[in-house]
Amino acid sequence: MDTPATGTVRGLALRARAAAPALAAASTVAKDAALRAAADQLLRDATEILAANQVDVDRAVASGTPGQMVDRLRLDGNRLAAMAEGLRQVADLTDPVGTVTAEWTRPNGLMMQKVRVPLGVVAIIYENRPNVTSDAFGLCLKAGNVAFLRGSSGGLSSNTAITRSIRRAVSENGLPEDAVILVDDVSREAAVDFMRQRGLVDCLIPRGGPALISSILENATVPYVIDGDGNCHIYVDAAANLEMATDIIVNAKMQRPSVCNAAESLVVHEAVAGDFLPLAAAALKGVELVGDQRARRILPEVGAAVDDDWSTEYLDLKLSIRVVDDLGEAIAHINETGSGHSEAIVTEDRSAGERFTREVDAAAVLVNASTRFVDGDEFGFGAEIGISTQKLHARGPMGLEQLTTEKYVIHGNGQVRA
Amino acid sequence: MDTPATGTVRGLALRARAAAPALAAASTVAKDAALRAAADQLLRDATEILAANQVDVDRAVASGTPGQMVDRLRLDGNRLAAMAEGLRQVADLTDPVGTVTAEWTRPNGLMMQKVRVPLGVVAIIYENRPNVTSDAFGLCLKAGNVAFLRGSSGGLSSNTAITRSIRRAVSENGLPEDAVILVDDVSREAAVDFMRQRGLVDCLIPRGGPALISSILENATVPYVIDGDGNCHIYVDAAANLEMATDIIVNAKMQRPSVCNAAESLVVHEAVAGDFLPLAAAALKGVELVGDQRARRILPEVGAAVDDDWSTEYLDLKLSIRVVDDLGEAIAHINETGSGHSEAIVTEDRSAGERFTREVDAAAVLVNASTRFVDGDEFGFGAEIGISTQKLHARGPMGLEQLTTEKYVIHGNGQVRA
Repeated sequence: MDTPATGTVRGLALRARAAAPALAAASTVAKDAALRAAADQLLRDATEILAANQVDVDRAVASGTPGQMVDRLRLDGNRLAAMAEGLRQVADLTDPVGTVTAEWTRPNGLMMQKVRVPLGVVAIIYENRPNVTSDAFGLCLKAGNVAFLRGSSGGLSSNTAITRSIRRAVSENGLPEDAVILVDDVSREAAVDFMRQRGLVDCLIPRGGPALISSILENATVPYVIDGDGNCHIYVDAAANLEMATDIIVNAKMQRPSVCNAAESLVVHEAVAGDFLPLAAAALKGVELVGDQRARRILPEVGAAVDDDWSTEYLDLKLSIRVVDDLGEAIAHINETGSGHSEAIVTEDRSAGERFTREVDAAAVLVNASTRFVDGDEFGFGAEIGISTQKLHARGPMGLEQLTTEKYVIHGNGQVRA
Repeated sequence: MDTPATGTVRGLALRARAAAPALAAASTVAKDAALRAAADQLLRDATEILAANQVDVDRAVASGTPGQMVDRLRLDGNRLAAMAEGLRQVADLTDPVGTVTAEWTRPNGLMMQKVRVPLGVVAIIYENRPNVTSDAFGLCLKAGNVAFLRGSSGGLSSNTAITRSIRRAVSENGLPEDAVILVDDVSREAAVDFMRQRGLVDCLIPRGGPALISSILENATVPYVIDGDGNCHIYVDAAANLEMATDIIVNAKMQRPSVCNAAESLVVHEAVAGDFLPLAAAALKGVELVGDQRARRILPEVGAAVDDDWSTEYLDLKLSIRVVDDLGEAIAHINETGSGHSEAIVTEDRSAGERFTREVDAAAVLVNASTRFVDGDEFGFGAEIGISTQKLHARGPMGLEQLTTEKYVIHGNGQVRA
């Protein structure tokens, strides 16, 4: 009942593929019941899961892993409860599968439909955090997909225990236990194999740092979606409400600096730089500021920005500041140095806002709002599996809908092509 | 005015990127005028283009290229007129750019929009046919993208002449001539470089055979969409109208056997195999048939199918025949051996049709219609740049809409995140 799936990466990928049709055909009721049962089972298995996690934590501490990384790895009662609650929230979301997204009839009488369907097998490769195991399973299951997972070696004991618990709950609720499969070979070779199961894996989503992304680019043969960096800017226009601009930069930089939708750079129109920068600097107390020459003429205490600063995602209490001649220069600078994640303008000038949203090339462009709003929850999508900075398939927060595809269903009465 | 762009692949990709904002901002009127001007210019430059093509054709003949490939390479007045007409047809299509595809307001007052925007730089790598040069340019331009092209060495002279002609027309109409850039380095190294312009190319579309696809899988670091094979099946159900089934298999197999939406395999329910197969065999005169044991018991003159036949895209007047116990076996066989392109059932039984369309995993599933209808024109999309058999971004015919992406545009009045 609760046997973990073990075997070669290929063998496990074949099992994932084999389970996909049953998951795709599962009713919303069955999927939601399995999600709620998995939430209950995680809490029921708390002792076992926390003990397994302790093994990972002890090993990490013994090998001198930095404290911040050990903290990401560590589970406790609260974190486990949050994982269970996450699964229940996904059960409450609307099932995207089966939605007819377009419908039309051709002159020859063919009735055309475009229908939302599961992707099939969604592979996720991720680094330490064990909560990804249940989060990824939850979103994949709700969208009718098999979750084919490969966590890091450092989280193997935790991930194995979590997966075992979920597999038990799923199979007790009449769905295939292979709805979630964890690859237990944590070697580098297995990671590369995992990226090359073409024909078995429909979509690969990496969640990790630059080394993982670069390995995907070099090795993957399966289709993938990259959850990219966020080098986000706040541009304060000549027509900005400076009080609003101060609130927005403080929120975007300081509310949670370690996340991808936090701001990394402040761009200011020269017409308001003299008034605005002293206000901003005072409000950004505790943030290390670096600026270009014009910014430093106004704020002499600020360090000099070097070229790299303009494209760096600090993920920390640090901010670069640049003064520009006009809106056009701001847009060009943002398009050149940004990562295509989230970019904001603060302005009371409607046409400046329109030009900014039209010309800035990013997943999300905001007028008079903090970049921190760019995530699945704040968009009203519910949970997300990442935020895509690429333009194909999914751009911006990836929720349930982005874990599906569409197919054409065509009804005729014997039509043949002339 | 009509200088071709030359330089390293990187240098040309940088030029493509630099031209992208102006293309993205171009009005529908400006794009349509440029498309019509390019159509006129191609005809005006007919002598020069046909002479350039003759150079390619002579070289191909001299090097012993097979006749069919020389034919694909050859241009004449009619083919050039068809290329020009293709550009005019694209000008007549609705511009997808700027469409608001979703709109909602969050409880905090943020006004959310999802807006269709160009991809930016679309790279296309293709084999012989020189008409792809103008077809790809046309669709890319209409969708607001730069067409960054790399044709084969065999078509270089033709492609250079066509590109020069188009660039002249585009620039005379006030859009950047770099709306289309042809890479003139036709070495293998340049092909690989072309696949690795990450950060400059937003989407790569390969149009070519298995060797090209496998090179993309191994080398590409830019996002890509694969235009895949079509191993399409016609399944004749127990409840089929056998006359309709005969018309459909004849059309799907024989009307144009060399294209990806032609049928390669006939799957028949055993309850009707005895009645249907003799009808089908008589109607499929001129088609080489191979079958499994049960099919050959009914049609003893038919050759024995080997395992490879079930997954082969013949693209020729050849058809494999398999008899199955029931609908479930038909679906399993199709999902196992099909390429996820187009699959059809012939049945008068509504529930059989529903199960088939739900459980068969393909870009298009058809009930009582020929697979030959699965293309952009027959769907009503106008021209297409290929048919995707992958599930990410685009599945099925890729028209103008599939050459765009979406971005979120968010308007607030100072919202910050709590």
